[in-house]
Amino acid sequence: LASRAGSAPGNRNVLVIIGDDAGFETQVYNNTVCKTPHLNSLGSRSLTFRQAFTSVSSCSPSRSAILTGLPQHQNGMYGLHQGYHHFNSFDNVRSLPLLLNQSGIRTGIIGKKHVGPESVYPFEFAETEENNHIMQVGRNITLIKHLVREFLQQKDDRPFFLYIGFHDPHRCGHTNPQFGNFCEKFGNGEPGMGLIPDWTPVHYSPEEVIVPPFVQDTPAARSDLAAQYTTISRMDQGIGLILQELQAAGHDKDTLILYSSDNGIPFPNGRTNLYTSGMAEPLLLSSPLHTSRWGQTTDSFASLLDVVPTVLDWYGLDYPEYEIFGKNKVVKLTGKSLLPALKEEQSWNTVYASHDLHEVTMFYPMRVIRTGDYHLIHNLNYAMPFPIDQDFFLSPSFQDLLNRTREGQPLHWFKTLKNYYYRPQWELYNLRTDPQETVNLAGNSDYRDVLQELRSQLQAWQRITYDPWVCAPWGVLEDEGPYKDNPVCMSMDNGT
Amino acid sequence: LASRAGSAPGNRNVLVIIGDDAGFETQVYNNTVCKTPHLNSLGSRSLTFRQAFTSVSSCSPSRSAILTGLPQHQNGMYGLHQGYHHFNSFDNVRSLPLLLNQSGIRTGIIGKKHVGPESVYPFEFAETEENNHIMQVGRNITLIKHLVREFLQQKDDRPFFLYIGFHDPHRCGHTNPQFGNFCEKFGNGEPGMGLIPDWTPVHYSPEEVIVPPFVQDTPAARSDLAAQYTTISRMDQGIGLILQELQAAGHDKDTLILYSSDNGIPFPNGRTNLYTSGMAEPLLLSSPLHTSRWGQTTDSFASLLDVVPTVLDWYGLDYPEYEIFGKNKVVKLTGKSLLPALKEEQSWNTVYASHDLHEVTMFYPMRVIRTGDYHLIHNLNYAMPFPIDQDFFLSPSFQDLLNRTREGQPLHWFKTLKNYYYRPQWELYNLRTDPQETVNLAGNSDYRDVLQELRSQLQAWQRITYDPWVCAPWGVLEDEGPYKDNPVCMSMDNGT
Ligand SMILES: [Ca+2]
Ligand SMILES: [Ca+2]
Ligand SMILES: [Mg+2]
Ligand SMILES: [Mg+2]
Repeated sequence: LASRAGSAPGNRNVLVIIGDDAGFETQVYNNTVCKTPHLNSLGSRSLTFRQAFTSVSSCSPSRSAILTGLPQHQNGMYGLHQGYHHFNSFDNVRSLPLLLNQSGIRTGIIGKKHVGPESVYPFEFAETEENNHIMQVGRNITLIKHLVREFLQQKDDRPFFLYIGFHDPHRCGHTNPQFGNFCEKFGNGEPGMGLIPDWTPVHYSPEEVIVPPFVQDTPAARSDLAAQYTTISRMDQGIGLILQELQAAGHDKDTLILYSSDNGIPFPNGRTNLYTSGMAEPLLLSSPLHTSRWGQTTDSFASLLDVVPTVLDWYGLDYPEYEIFGKNKVVKLTGKSLLPALKEEQSWNTVYASHDLHEVTMFYPMRVIRTGDYHLIHNLNYAMPFPIDQDFFLSPSFQDLLNRTREGQPLHWFKTLKNYYYRPQWELYNLRTDPQETVNLAGNSDYRDVLQELRSQLQAWQRITYDPWVCAPWGVLEDEGPYKDNPVCMSMDNGT
Repeated sequence: LASRAGSAPGNRNVLVIIGDDAGFETQVYNNTVCKTPHLNSLGSRSLTFRQAFTSVSSCSPSRSAILTGLPQHQNGMYGLHQGYHHFNSFDNVRSLPLLLNQSGIRTGIIGKKHVGPESVYPFEFAETEENNHIMQVGRNITLIKHLVREFLQQKDDRPFFLYIGFHDPHRCGHTNPQFGNFCEKFGNGEPGMGLIPDWTPVHYSPEEVIVPPFVQDTPAARSDLAAQYTTISRMDQGIGLILQELQAAGHDKDTLILYSSDNGIPFPNGRTNLYTSGMAEPLLLSSPLHTSRWGQTTDSFASLLDVVPTVLDWYGLDYPEYEIFGKNKVVKLTGKSLLPALKEEQSWNTVYASHDLHEVTMFYPMRVIRTGDYHLIHNLNYAMPFPIDQDFFLSPSFQDLLNRTREGQPLHWFKTLKNYYYRPQWELYNLRTDPQETVNLAGNSDYRDVLQELRSQLQAWQRITYDPWVCAPWGVLEDEGPYKDNPVCMSMDNGT
């Protein structure tokens, strides 16, 4: 892999910071309650994307897409990596750490990795859940600070790429409820909680939190959100420490910083969903070499599939030509470099998303195009209920919906559980007139042409990304033997 | 792993031969048309099981279950291994080759492997699709003969375990249609077909084949079956060569031979189904040390999950105590040694089966108990159509059903495509009165107690095999944090 200029990349570094299930509960995105002074400070030196989206609202799939530039259906990480879920990317996928290692760039990861196999994601410096407790390496901001320092102080002349995966503000109730629903007590110095020396906990009352429009406004959800805010605040303080280390190491003037999150917040209609509430992500991009739009926001669309092209662009590197399956299936990135937006507003207005599983039992493939005002969702397993994950099921917010439904109480929510579970095959929303995505236009004849056009665009994206589900649910993909070079969909919907 | 007697196993060897999609089209099972003299000969020195069943009717999952003794949902091979399907067993599963290698037994595999990762299935001698062309190592019986000779003639004093995976009589139309629908022309010496010197092709006419009761009786299906017969005949001749090599090496008097198949035949209602037509398998067990029942048949139930216990029993080895996930989740084999049946008839009358995916897009989990006269199937994704695989879809037999349905012609089949695609959540059949499984008794109040009892037994098996799908489709399994030692199903079917 050669740099575009034919020489080694100059002294240009990259710091990527990914929150775990983080959303818009920050001052940068005009949340006036949840105090995030360090993200604010980063925001003042960033272009802030108001229309940024994950390509999949599930942890491992999203992280694999961030690190490969390929949607989950193309890189093989169809669901979660850990335990019996057991998903892994294909052996010959070329990820960012792999490509950068080969290009003379030092790579490091601190915190949550959650992708595999190791050979596909080979960070040189790695302090992750694979060799640490995830609670420590993902939430103990003092430890994270020391690990960042260790990485930055290594004697090495190469440029670096450092990826930091916070485990904050992920829920805690599923695995470690003793620390609170969002691990908001972990490290607060109370008996049994341990102490994170650099953390000053900030507490919120359920009354003051801002309930997102897609979450029910009830005491249970409010108290859940209050816990989440405290944990967001820990991550924010961690980000402050990391940026301090970067400056202390003399790299604040040569490092591109990207902050985002892997998936939607773990609340109803959020994580595992590809509604806007599950797909939209915070995205701050800060370049010391592009200061003209510092502090500005942009409505140009960005996707987390853009991270790889952006980082390669920053280093002046090209993406290689290679195949994952078969000679004529050259891998092409469908994202774009975000760097041009740092200079002037762009007209980007289309992103795609693709979900297959989360937990291995949660088969619910969805394909999405979000373009202009429109959001089209194709639910492939629509006749079965939308599955609920182990972590979210136990959350106070979801239990509250279950309890209220069982007892016939008002939900104070914009949906019913029945609506939430049972979805039509096609959902089309006009975000301009219907920001909450409550009016499905897919069956509305006024939108027939829009639907048709979006379906074609979505299908085209599925084809160039070699989507195994391209023919689902009513067709069988034939792509071997005589169909190897010209895959076709054959219909099984015949006489039924 | 110590032998039960505390000493190394004596000079006892094992030869396992697995056909690929093979069924009952052999004289051993009273098919009077398809000539299989070598299986006949093996049958005369075997106990022939008339009630043997695979635990899953899909290639990689079944092979993983054969080699680990664990159902696919427990060993992690949830679907096919190759290409973008990409399933693998969990890293710490202990398979037969792994256990035998550790016990001083020489292990070999020739032909179709189709499982991974390598570290879980570490055969010492391996000539498979991973280092050969599958057509050669799985269908060229001359090559197979030479490889068997090479293995048997290695200077090594250890007892051996040799696993031979024929690719015959698998279909060919999907990948290599130039050789015929079942690769029945491959190696027949005609132009472009290559030559397998040891093979004398046997041809059948469509008129003479015996159409299984679950296949439509039409010219298309008959001609498909005639091609299958020719390929079965090649495998049969290959088995003859293998047994000759065994004898020539002086191991006919000390080797346990097991012949079976991985899954149902690739015809409608066969492979990927867990009806009896998809689950029932040929099973011949031949021991030179147990001659009293040679040539007999038995109606004792056998499962391919019994292969591991049988082989361990033969060598006098115990299965180790270990966990795959978590401290209190000790792995227990649910199969049994079949050796006692070689001495006298057994009362075994229960087997289980478990399917999740075949191709990665084909999510259709099923859980099955077959006990006494009853066969209970739990279809977990029942509201969506039963998926059709890429290989079967292109087959003349299935195309015939599609075409006849489209054109409104009689199917000459015992089902409609609509019946076939759309299945109820629960299916209960009484095999005594309804061998074709056409009358679903699950909703019949006379069978309420039977249904209840079978559901409990099935659920109990799912629990002891740590089935991640144990709560599906209406519940969420909680098995971490406070539920780690006492997993529970929590209902999401609430208010819908
Ligand atoms: Ca996450
Ligand atoms: Ca097979
Ligand atoms: Mg890993
Ligand atoms: Mg492999």
